[in-house]
Amino acid sequence: MTELGGFQDHVGQVDLTAGDVSYRGIDDEDARKYIGARGLGVKYVFDAGPDVDPDSPENRLAFMNGPLTGTQTVMSGRIAVVTKSPLTGTVTDSHHGGWSGARLKWSGFDGLLFDGKAEEPVYAYVEDGEVELRDASHLWGKGVHETIETIGEEIDGTVGKNVSVMAIGPGGENGVRYACIVNEDDRASGRGGTGCVMGSKNLKAVVVKSGTRMPKPADPETFQQGYQQGMQAIQESDVTAPNEGGLSLYGTNVLMNITEEMDGLPVKNGKYTSTESFSASEGTTIDAEEVSGENVRENILVDEPTCHSCPVACKKEVEVTTMHKGEEMNVRMESYEYESAYALGPNSGHTERDDIALMIDRCNDMGVDTIEVGNMMAMAMEMSDEGKLDEEGTLDWGDSETMVDMIERISMREEGLPDLLAEGARRIAEKKDAENNSLAVKGQTIPAYDPRCMKGMGIAYATSNRGACHLRAYTPAAEILGVPEKVDPYAWEGKGELTATFQDLHAISDSFDICKFNAFAEGIEEYVMQYNGMTGLDVTEDELIESGERVYTLERYYNNLAGFDGSDDSLPARFLDGEGGVAGQGASEGEFCELDEMKEEYYSHRGWVDGVVPDEKLEALEIDLGPGTGVSSGSDSAAPADD
Amino acid sequence: MTELGGFQDHVGQVDLTAGDVSYRGIDDEDARKYIGARGLGVKYVFDAGPDVDPDSPENRLAFMNGPLTGTQTVMSGRIAVVTKSPLTGTVTDSHHGGWSGARLKWSGFDGLLFDGKAEEPVYAYVEDGEVELRDASHLWGKGVHETIETIGEEIDGTVGKNVSVMAIGPGGENGVRYACIVNEDDRASGRGGTGCVMGSKNLKAVVVKSGTRMPKPADPETFQQGYQQGMQAIQESDVTAPNEGGLSLYGTNVLMNITEEMDGLPVKNGKYTSTESFSASEGTTIDAEEVSGENVRENILVDEPTCHSCPVACKKEVEVTTMHKGEEMNVRMESYEYESAYALGPNSGHTERDDIALMIDRCNDMGVDTIEVGNMMAMAMEMSDEGKLDEEGTLDWGDSETMVDMIERISMREEGLPDLLAEGARRIAEKKDAENNSLAVKGQTIPAYDPRCMKGMGIAYATSNRGACHLRAYTPAAEILGVPEKVDPYAWEGKGELTATFQDLHAISDSFDICKFNAFAEGIEEYVMQYNGMTGLDVTEDELIESGERVYTLERYYNNLAGFDGSDDSLPARFLDGEGGVAGQGASEGEFCELDEMKEEYYSHRGWVDGVVPDEKLEALEIDLGPGTGVSSGSDSAAPADD
Repeated sequence: MTELGGFQDHVGQVDLTAGDVSYRGIDDEDARKYIGARGLGVKYVFDAGPDVDPDSPENRLAFMNGPLTGTQTVMSGRIAVVTKSPLTGTVTDSHHGGWSGARLKWSGFDGLLFDGKAEEPVYAYVEDGEVELRDASHLWGKGVHETIETIGEEIDGTVGKNVSVMAIGPGGENGVRYACIVNEDDRASGRGGTGCVMGSKNLKAVVVKSGTRMPKPADPETFQQGYQQGMQAIQESDVTAPNEGGLSLYGTNVLMNITEEMDGLPVKNGKYTSTESFSASEGTTIDAEEVSGENVRENILVDEPTCHSCPVACKKEVEVTTMHKGEEMNVRMESYEYESAYALGPNSGHTERDDIALMIDRCNDMGVDTIEVGNMMAMAMEMSDEGKLDEEGTLDWGDSETMVDMIERISMREEGLPDLLAEGARRIAEKKDAENNSLAVKGQTIPAYDPRCMKGMGIAYATSNRGACHLRAYTPAAEILGVPEKVDPYAWEGKGELTATFQDLHAISDSFDICKFNAFAEGIEEYVMQYNGMTGLDVTEDELIESGERVYTLERYYNNLAGFDGSDDSLPARFLDGEGGVAGQGASEGEFCELDEMKEEYYSHRGWVDGVVPDEKLEALEIDLGPGTGVSSGSDSAAPADD
Repeated sequence: MTELGGFQDHVGQVDLTAGDVSYRGIDDEDARKYIGARGLGVKYVFDAGPDVDPDSPENRLAFMNGPLTGTQTVMSGRIAVVTKSPLTGTVTDSHHGGWSGARLKWSGFDGLLFDGKAEEPVYAYVEDGEVELRDASHLWGKGVHETIETIGEEIDGTVGKNVSVMAIGPGGENGVRYACIVNEDDRASGRGGTGCVMGSKNLKAVVVKSGTRMPKPADPETFQQGYQQGMQAIQESDVTAPNEGGLSLYGTNVLMNITEEMDGLPVKNGKYTSTESFSASEGTTIDAEEVSGENVRENILVDEPTCHSCPVACKKEVEVTTMHKGEEMNVRMESYEYESAYALGPNSGHTERDDIALMIDRCNDMGVDTIEVGNMMAMAMEMSDEGKLDEEGTLDWGDSETMVDMIERISMREEGLPDLLAEGARRIAEKKDAENNSLAVKGQTIPAYDPRCMKGMGIAYATSNRGACHLRAYTPAAEILGVPEKVDPYAWEGKGELTATFQDLHAISDSFDICKFNAFAEGIEEYVMQYNGMTGLDVTEDELIESGERVYTLERYYNNLAGFDGSDDSLPARFLDGEGGVAGQGASEGEFCELDEMKEEYYSHRGWVDGVVPDEKLEALEIDLGPGTGVSSGSDSAAPADD
């Protein structure tokens, strides 16, 4: 057990196969070593064995808080979902905001572990330190929105007021490999297929009723001073300053015009580096500005809701009324994100602002990852051009009308193209000899930063433990926004080290669990003060950074045991100077990504050998886990979990 | 005892005469009725008897937190000091910010009550739920700054880091009737002579070491949603928005140019309504702009520190290097406030920006109220003109060089003019037949809002329970800043009711105890959510407002028992249309304050009879206190306190 502040020392362990719920504390050494949320979640998933089949009942699904979740700390409303990814085969952690994380904490939990598979669909109802499994047969097949509404009607308490629902849609039920989990605020644990794992367990939703168990800081003075310093930094940052900074005014989509301008926006399945370059070559004009945060704010913005304890309000709720297949459609949805807009828009060859809103809403309701869905359709469009999909059915560039409907068809795994696309890039590539059409790393496709322009993103995508991802090392902070200091996006030197540094820092905030946007303003100093203040620990900055490294290294070790090595730390060929390479254009004219050079720097900095963590590194970081036995190693664990 | 959230149910009761400390809980009904801080403090001071001599050991001095002090609630770092005022003879409450209130809460206390008088100088040392009296003989005679520094060297822990010191200077030691209490952040419980009472008890300082006892909300969901809504309102307000709103950019002194412009700035002991009018008539030019927040920010600002949990940072720390009596003086001090600048500057006939900084710093170090000191010197200047001070020594308008030194001389009660000025306006007026020169209501002089321009301030000054005060009903919020809505400053109709409404609202926030600046953005809705969320109560908006009215009415009842009635709800003659009246100028040309009309409206709204609370009103508000017996009525009180 742990007595550290910020913890409830209470984790629900649900054996879905047996329908049993038990409870365990948190081993104090684990809490100190792995911080919480992402770190502890990875540890618990590791305990279930890195060689588990992600589609099997033996795969463990963890919903984890961290010691700062649901506290006063700015942007601390987050929750980590950790499991072995059915998309990538790596360990994956995918976080979402809103209030679910805070409510889980206040209801008395540090986390919930789901093992096994329920015989019939169930949902987990969490209240006041207890988990109860309830029948969800009547919810199976329903979209996320109707699921949440129905549960809201069934239970005492208003969803969104003091209840959070984390649900899957048809995507997760039908095994779409990038199905996600969506809550009542349309916040999604989007990437890596956590919703697919949930569906494979017949777990339709996790419902959390808010409680009274908000932890208080062990050392209020230190905590408050850290909070105060952090809050001031957030107010003074050009990025986060409430109602003033770019992120607050335009949300994540503040980046659309910026990356377009610098030729760092992947367009047409990553062939072009801006819509301008696309338009110049393709003889048809599309324009990133039309789907930019500025355009959205001016034309379709209706609200700017916030997550727990967040002054930034990056969520941009929009309402559109648009024609779809001859009928007028009205959609109001949160939120029009940059990554979603990129994948469902320019990367698929169009900039139809309102159609993108329809698509995001459809993805949220079906419970599938907007980035992956968009990129799968872009991949299909390119494969269609190359005659690779004549059997399954083709898709045309920029056909946004068809795209809107394709989302539901993928989620239902309709025979033919939709069913194929539901499998994700790696399996499509294998099945259809389409490796060249894939934008994936380790099976997960790239988000909206072109690695020919931002070289740091190249090494970050390649070495991300969960497949291509901007959130494992957000180098654009430095390469675009100049945080903590501006670096040349086109230079590759130093990017290996920069990426490792960001990876460790983000592993800390993901383990706290607080929003990454915090890092645009707060630094390790504020992190340490709030972490020490809440837990009562007295760690130094170096010790906390080492904990971040420990978390990142544990993930890599997991992946090594699951069969991944340096050869998987790759990039799609089109970004590299070699066969299949396509140079950047415009401001990124002639640019490729110097992956090999950066990998060498990165591994050297990490002390890894060709992508593999050597024993001495494990020892140095005191990672003394065996390769996993399927038996939980919590000191006061109730029972083996997945049997 | 009370189990309401936000309370420690722990009050230290110090019998200075006997040198004993005992502890008491808080009667649950008291907590529900009087909220906390100001409300509970007034109740405890009432218990000691409204007929007590303020200069005697029998006067009780209360340092009180409220249920929101030291919490996440924005601007919740405040503490109320409540006692019978040696300046006015009314009950008075005077709050200060910084971190003292939060630290007292975290050290385990809702408040401290001091009764009796120590034989030798002592200071109270508070740590971890205990109060200890320590010898302060070596500190007696020292200025506030040296006192705090010396205590800091003596104790374990760094002052300002995890220790707060609330100290008096020579002003309090020597019985200056408007002596104040100042902490390590130069935050002062400024008005009403709380420092004078402290001095009369031989209590040099209250030292509080931060602890770990931060209360957590009884209902986190409700509390957090209230917090979130409040924080958003603060970010969106033109007044409070961090780094954007007027208060955040320029501090309280944002008002200097505004009131000058609208001819609402009392100048030359309230003869003029702006420095422009002064300059046009007096043949010598002074200019409010030179001492404005804008000017200060541009020229002498060095830092913008914050109080606990405050994103606004209204404190403006300045550094000046200026000549004083032929020598170069360098002073760095927090903070250059509007009220201080008015009284020590334009109202005393000058606008020497840097000399005002010297004076504020001197006041802080001597522990005397900047407003009262400035106004006493202005009164003396006017009396000098009229030949009323030939015996004691005269003072010239705008002689800022002499003013700087006069502050220390008043604090030392040097024979002659300084000793006279130390007595405050009412006693000077009585002794020197100078009622016409006094700007006082109930013995306390007016702050920086001219009631010929802002009529609401007229009725607010007149009916304030602690003598002339802008903080008992901050009508300029509506009359200048348009919060909650803009009202015509020159109209008197409705101002009686407006004043009563503000009085009740401020009584709530003072009892929480949170900063009044909160009210520029947050409203009763956010107050109720955070109050209910923290305490676990379920009061309605109307019930909370009634509690505010109950606190205000209890104070009035106290004053009635102490001999005050409607005749004391007065204004200086010069603001009224009658004998001695001086009409406003410029934008306020020809204006007087319609006091009688507003009093009628006010009393009628209050249900008072000529300033006196009738029995039926006491009953309706469930104020069932007897007139005080000197015996504490806490349900679990340890022993009679002041014997």
